Amino acid sequence: MITWNNLDTVKAYGELQKAAKVNLAEVLAGENGADRVRKYSVPMAEGLAYNYAAKQVDDTMLEVLAKLAEETQLVEKFASLYNGEVINTGEKRLVLHHMTRGQLGKAVTADGVDKRTFYVGEQKKIAEFANKVHNGEITNAAGEKFTTVVQIGIGGSDLGPRAMYLALENWAKVNHTLKMEAKFISNVDPDDAAGVLSTIDAAHSIFVLVSKSGTTLETLTNESFVKDALKNAGLDPAKHMIAVTSETSPLAKSKDYLAAFFMDDYIGGRYSSTSAVGGAVLSLAFGPDVFAQFLDGAAEADKTATNADIQKNPAMLDALIGVYERNILGYQNTAVLPYSQALSRFPAHLQQLDMESNGKSVNRFGEPVNYVTGPVIFGEPGTNGQHSFYQLLHQGTDIIPLQFVGFKSNQMEKDVVIKGSTSQQKLCANVVAQIVAFACGKADENRNKNFEGGRPSSIIIGEQLNPKTLGVLLAHFENKVMFQGFVWNVNSFDQEGVQLGKVLATRVLAHETDGALQAYSDLLNI
Amino acid sequence: MITWNNLDTVKAYGELQKAAKVNLAEVLAGENGADRVRKYSVPMAEGLAYNYAAKQVDDTMLEVLAKLAEETQLVEKFASLYNGEVINTGEKRLVLHHMTRGQLGKAVTADGVDKRTFYVGEQKKIAEFANKVHNGEITNAAGEKFTTVVQIGIGGSDLGPRAMYLALENWAKVNHTLKMEAKFISNVDPDDAAGVLSTIDAAHSIFVLVSKSGTTLETLTNESFVKDALKNAGLDPAKHMIAVTSETSPLAKSKDYLAAFFMDDYIGGRYSSTSAVGGAVLSLAFGPDVFAQFLDGAAEADKTATNADIQKNPAMLDALIGVYERNILGYQNTAVLPYSQALSRFPAHLQQLDMESNGKSVNRFGEPVNYVTGPVIFGEPGTNGQHSFYQLLHQGTDIIPLQFVGFKSNQMEKDVVIKGSTSQQKLCANVVAQIVAFACGKADENRNKNFEGGRPSSIIIGEQLNPKTLGVLLAHFENKVMFQGFVWNVNSFDQEGVQLGKVLATRVLAHETDGALQAYSDLLNI
Repeated sequence: MITWNNLDTVKAYGELQKAAKVNLAEVLAGENGADRVRKYSVPMAEGLAYNYAAKQVDDTMLEVLAKLAEETQLVEKFASLYNGEVINTGEKRLVLHHMTRGQLGKAVTADGVDKRTFYVGEQKKIAEFANKVHNGEITNAAGEKFTTVVQIGIGGSDLGPRAMYLALENWAKVNHTLKMEAKFISNVDPDDAAGVLSTIDAAHSIFVLVSKSGTTLETLTNESFVKDALKNAGLDPAKHMIAVTSETSPLAKSKDYLAAFFMDDYIGGRYSSTSAVGGAVLSLAFGPDVFAQFLDGAAEADKTATNADIQKNPAMLDALIGVYERNILGYQNTAVLPYSQALSRFPAHLQQLDMESNGKSVNRFGEPVNYVTGPVIFGEPGTNGQHSFYQLLHQGTDIIPLQFVGFKSNQMEKDVVIKGSTSQQKLCANVVAQIVAFACGKADENRNKNFEGGRPSSIIIGEQLNPKTLGVLLAHFENKVMFQGFVWNVNSFDQEGVQLGKVLATRVLAHETDGALQAYSDLLNI
Repeated sequence: MITWNNLDTVKAYGELQKAAKVNLAEVLAGENGADRVRKYSVPMAEGLAYNYAAKQVDDTMLEVLAKLAEETQLVEKFASLYNGEVINTGEKRLVLHHMTRGQLGKAVTADGVDKRTFYVGEQKKIAEFANKVHNGEITNAAGEKFTTVVQIGIGGSDLGPRAMYLALENWAKVNHTLKMEAKFISNVDPDDAAGVLSTIDAAHSIFVLVSKSGTTLETLTNESFVKDALKNAGLDPAKHMIAVTSETSPLAKSKDYLAAFFMDDYIGGRYSSTSAVGGAVLSLAFGPDVFAQFLDGAAEADKTATNADIQKNPAMLDALIGVYERNILGYQNTAVLPYSQALSRFPAHLQQLDMESNGKSVNRFGEPVNYVTGPVIFGEPGTNGQHSFYQLLHQGTDIIPLQFVGFKSNQMEKDVVIKGSTSQQKLCANVVAQIVAFACGKADENRNKNFEGGRPSSIIIGEQLNPKTLGVLLAHFENKVMFQGFVWNVNSFDQEGVQLGKVLATRVLAHETDGALQAYSDLLNI
């Protein structure tokens, strides 16, 4: 029997408030510190590991976190989610993104069909279409192969797929699976579409129009923009466009598209990278096999997330430590710092995933909560961030928890030895150095050169970023965010906070404004 | 006589703490709200305006802020800076980035030369070099024109110039001044350099090596990486590379470079976009005239920043309101939200500029301060952000002040009318709608659809983003950060917080580690 309770009514939360604080510099000192680094590590799927030795927890705290997980029924709630309960209570919807990559629990039927069969069916349709594009069965009007794929979408139809594409682009180059270059148009700013169009050969491009509802203002506007450009270039837009949408959308089965592939209301935008939303563009760019590996990685991570033992469930442990940092230690932000240039836009994806899911002030019953919820997420790849905002992270007046990611090997085959080490070794040495510098600090009589330490971080370590490990990473954070939503008792799957802006923008465009809204409109000449 | 005092010893700060709080939804309601929008606006250079109607201030508060500005001697401190005092006390250096774009005060002589003459001289040398590249006097070994310029640098040698390039790339395309495409290599991750090299034609590329000290690990490593690649392609690296560095650096006057251009120790990396660091790559990409216009805009904004009246000094007013939000209202973050796709990396530049400058816990005398200093800065362009993290901004449990930027016209000539409005109008309607939605909110009986409001924002409004207005924007934020540093009594021009990580990374690479550092190194196979 699952019960949904506010965090401040949970017994283990009281224990957490009372638990003794951990002094990071102390616990990481000497050989005990080395032991801790070896011990405070949880295996993830595909050889990755979540290491939390530099987090402000100890064995006592971990016991309390385990109680919190048990009392808030985290894995039971996850099970009810993947078994098809209406977890998105605000919109009265199932939450089935896990099912796009595997069957975790029992079969789920909705809209009269088995949903796993539906998602797999769309993947097969996409794979067949992509293969035909790659082998030249589907070509442009001149019978020439398409070389470029352009995703038109915004929010979850942009950030996730774009981050995943960038994460694998160079890997695909050296593994000879880069079938088509991918570009992305998202912003309603007309210069976004015009800028992208100025860099591609439209005659050899396929455009993927992505909108679940088929009514997203930015996306439909950019579709028109692109269609105009294609027509002006003497091309037939219907021969250059595919749609990814829901079966009930106005875009479905239109003659305006070469093909349409479907998702449904049970896949939230920010959770849609493993659905047709990511599937079409990634399968076209890298081939269906690469996309399938990506799904395999995500499915493996999902399986790990079903484990009730926090020592065997890295997403759940990561989530719980995050709640401790947010609600007990009072940290407002989390910085995501991948030491991998390929993950340059992964923080932007996590920013949406986390902040749109858990940036809520009411619980899942619509009642205000008396505690803070989702943190602000930001980040850039290391070592770049070291030469940018790390100054504040090290010596600023607030403590910002850090989420590092590092890989032993780089993706491309090239490296250079300077002063006895490769660039990859320098990259890894830097992330290791940062963890210890943040946690342990260094006393200096010159206070300007003094490092307080006590700044917590975790690191996810892997052998190499590839389709499978990328799938694990993606699912890890999806599941972390889901578990945190369970702990905070919020609905992580709606986003009512985006509505008011839409309503007011429509009013501005209809010139139905007064007061401040009209005055601002005047300033911008609308 | 200038005195440097901690903020909590300043009389006006006490008044600020006592001042009555402003209810945003109330003051922005009705026709009074419309008046406020028209009135709470300060002209900036080049036709831009800083509008703070949606900030939590009123006339009383503005009087206190004016007192705070006077008591902390903000414009006097700025004057002593541009007149050549040693403002960077930590490193015992002058702070002269303003002089790269104009002569605000008296002539400043350092290292035996007039510094304005020195900076202008380097600009001329760069302009001559760029013109020769563009007109084919300087070519590759085969006598062919260079088509691409690749900046190799990190931190301030990357983020600022990259953001500026992206801000003007499409503008330059439609104005026929895009002379060369620019690319950037920054990360020590070898896949960064390899990835960029895989997208360019090295035989027609000039590489700009940027390192003030000539010793930046990442940059020298990437130089070697690129040199190897050039040699492997049968090219002579010395015919493809220029250096931007200080005159005393090992890179200066080396035969390894086609040319060397100089900056000096008085230009901090994050303030170097208007020096040779930005000058070389931007002059090569857009032509020296465009770079000169960019400098003109920055110089105009600097002049505005010398005004003692907060109603005529937008950078100072912006700074003071930020301090009020940070120290009195307790807001920890600021989101930068440009409604312009061209400004996609402008928030990343501001992130460094602000967080590296003011993320400090000690005052300029090295004594700990008892108040919070620089905020966390993050952001993405609108409307993209609306479909991502705005959920938390609207309905999250913490209030995040917002810094919007909007332009009446787009940069490229193309637009499309859908449902009676252009994309540019939709873009502007959205930013207007967001300001009002955040400030005023909207009550709803369904608490999940309820918007509290009271979430403050400012907006900088301009006609179009072009070289001059970009210069104004850049300098506005540089000066804002400088003024805030003065108020907090910190040294905004050093960055001791980056040192410890460097020291530990060197130790890891030399295998001189033990304890946790060794244990982490083992995990990453270093």
